[in-house]
Amino acid sequence: MPAERPLFIPIILGTARQGRESEHVAQFVFEQAKKRAGVETELIDVRELPMRLDDAGEQMKDPKFSAAIERCDGLIIVTPEYNHGYPGLLKHALDMNLKEYIHKAAGICGVSAGPFGGARVIENLLPVLRELGLVTIFEDVNFGKVGTLFDERGQLLDESYVSRVDKFLDELTWMARVLRNGRQNISPV
Amino acid sequence: MPAERPLFIPIILGTARQGRESEHVAQFVFEQAKKRAGVETELIDVRELPMRLDDAGEQMKDPKFSAAIERCDGLIIVTPEYNHGYPGLLKHALDMNLKEYIHKAAGICGVSAGPFGGARVIENLLPVLRELGLVTIFEDVNFGKVGTLFDERGQLLDESYVSRVDKFLDELTWMARVLRNGRQNISPV
Amino acid sequence: MPAERPLFIPIILGTARQGRESEHVAQFVFEQAKKRAGVETELIDVRELPMRLDDAGEQMKDPKFSAAIERCDGLIIVTPEYNHGYPGLLKHALDMNLKEYIHKAAGICGVSAGPFGGARVIENLLPVLRELGLVTIFEDVNFGKVGTLFDERGQLLDESYVSRVDKFLDELTWMARVLRNGRQNISPV
Amino acid sequence: MPAERPLFIPIILGTARQGRESEHVAQFVFEQAKKRAGVETELIDVRELPMRLDDAGEQMKDPKFSAAIERCDGLIIVTPEYNHGYPGLLKHALDMNLKEYIHKAAGICGVSAGPFGGARVIENLLPVLRELGLVTIFEDVNFGKVGTLFDERGQLLDESYVSRVDKFLDELTWMARVLRNGRQNISPV
Repeated sequence: MPAERPLFIPIILGTARQGRESEHVAQFVFEQAKKRAGVETELIDVRELPMRLDDAGEQMKDPKFSAAIERCDGLIIVTPEYNHGYPGLLKHALDMNLKEYIHKAAGICGVSAGPFGGARVIENLLPVLRELGLVTIFEDVNFGKVGTLFDERGQLLDESYVSRVDKFLDELTWMARVLRNGRQNISPV
Repeated sequence: MPAERPLFIPIILGTARQGRESEHVAQFVFEQAKKRAGVETELIDVRELPMRLDDAGEQMKDPKFSAAIERCDGLIIVTPEYNHGYPGLLKHALDMNLKEYIHKAAGICGVSAGPFGGARVIENLLPVLRELGLVTIFEDVNFGKVGTLFDERGQLLDESYVSRVDKFLDELTWMARVLRNGRQNISPV
Repeated sequence: MPAERPLFIPIILGTARQGRESEHVAQFVFEQAKKRAGVETELIDVRELPMRLDDAGEQMKDPKFSAAIERCDGLIIVTPEYNHGYPGLLKHALDMNLKEYIHKAAGICGVSAGPFGGARVIENLLPVLRELGLVTIFEDVNFGKVGTLFDERGQLLDESYVSRVDKFLDELTWMARVLRNGRQNISPV
Repeated sequence: MPAERPLFIPIILGTARQGRESEHVAQFVFEQAKKRAGVETELIDVRELPMRLDDAGEQMKDPKFSAAIERCDGLIIVTPEYNHGYPGLLKHALDMNLKEYIHKAAGICGVSAGPFGGARVIENLLPVLRELGLVTIFEDVNFGKVGTLFDERGQLLDESYVSRVDKFLDELTWMARVLRNGRQNISPV
């Protein structure tokens, strides 16, 4: 049997806020994903995307971002919870693409200063991700009290998150593999 | 190549209300599903389930219902919208099972007296179906103004719903097949 | 100035599950509400309501329950989180009434075995309560890890919930008073 | 009795997309609101707000926008539905303020190219508006098939929307008045 092409699973850092703590989370998840055999990843920072303040949607399409989503088998969204909803710039970024998302897997890492680890922003994102054609897995990682989870250099202080992210990546890579196989080998009706 | 086992995709009629119009919808979708080659189906009526008014959850597990969900590859939920949410007895029924749902496909047919065809109950159900491990497809059928869609014997008056349900079943059977293949052939990490 | 009529704020215990831990929560919140000057309360247990398994909505209207909602100025809903959604029988009960809810205040106490205290069921209930005409306040109480919060006789073990419920009742009684004044003294346009 | 100060109810146009059809909707609602005796309004266009692509939240606070929200008694949000969710820049704008929203009324006008008039984005916004302390009324206006509702100069073609907006403004001004009275005359507990 020929070796399988690696799964491509980029990570979207979903906030551009100055002082964002989600950056530590995204960096940590990025490192964990890189360690996986058979997984290729990259970090997509909403702060770096060529978005505009006077437009929205596919009209702002960026060839590089679009190509990454087109090529991906799955997607990790690292998102803080702002007022129980998703950051505006995360949605602004997601709306830049459309058909590129269809039948890919998605997993969400919620981040919050309080104890619930973004449990609410995850619920708020579900209808959006579904409409984009993404399949959101039912494992999340909730990074609660994020201010206490990393030291000032971004080193993880709570080792329990290693196994939590592992479990999350297990499910995400399974679903990404299943859907890739479907896209390639199971013909539409 | 050996013939593939048919997909088993039962339909849950999600309301027990006297005078329910969703019964026509469920019956129509049931007939359409039965016509599909390679699809086996059955109608599960929440009114017929052995539920109780003094309990909830897996404690009310019914061997027959549980076995149907365990055996299924996908699920169609026909649900009216009651006060922008799901009917209580639909949720009471869904909560009777747990692990049986994991990695199966789900599709939702929304029903309403008004013009939006249950668009809101569909959004309201998404977090529940995800938590159960179901993958909700991104095609819905919205049966709006349901009082005008069927005659008194339940015959469909608006033929556009034939192709709408077809498109919905195309996507649902694709996803059911993809996930079945995943459950059978792609090992967890 | 004449003495103000007390606010009537009943508490709905939103689960009928055998072994329900939310009963301790509802009992505790009930005791706290009773201590308030100017507040009258009562406990409405969904297990005691004359609901049916073969109907839904106002067709099941119960004169006593309906009268309590009609008379109330606010409502406390104590609800566990079942699969990220509301218990079926809670919704079955809420749907029994309709116009009785309009322009009354509502507050939610979420309950869960896990650490998030029903944060997700609260989000899931919001569209329903709004459609009923209720105004859901933005203070919640989250009873997380409920199995550790009470002893076997239902005595509270974590005293921090006294002040949490106090803060919640402060906001709820303010909103109930404001809306009552509106219903009585501010004419519709 | 002294004449009452007018209610101040600004309208937020929630998309900056080039070619946005919601602009006609916002303009129409603005004209209707201006006709009301006892209502003062202004149009706040998210395209005009001094937002940034490398920050988020109160750190971007704008004195003029903040003062308008601080002074307002109610808020009308005109929002298209993008992928079943709210536009990123609408959320980016809402997150610029915080305490300014507390105990003010909010009403939502949903806009979509399809027939459902933004029914889904309204549900998606509810948890956010609640967390901000806003009271979202239970009357909405759904501008469905927006491409057919206005001519090229923005003149309304479907007169039924005059009475729909009227009914919406009736409820919104009632709630705004009730809450203003509460903020001014009913002391917190």
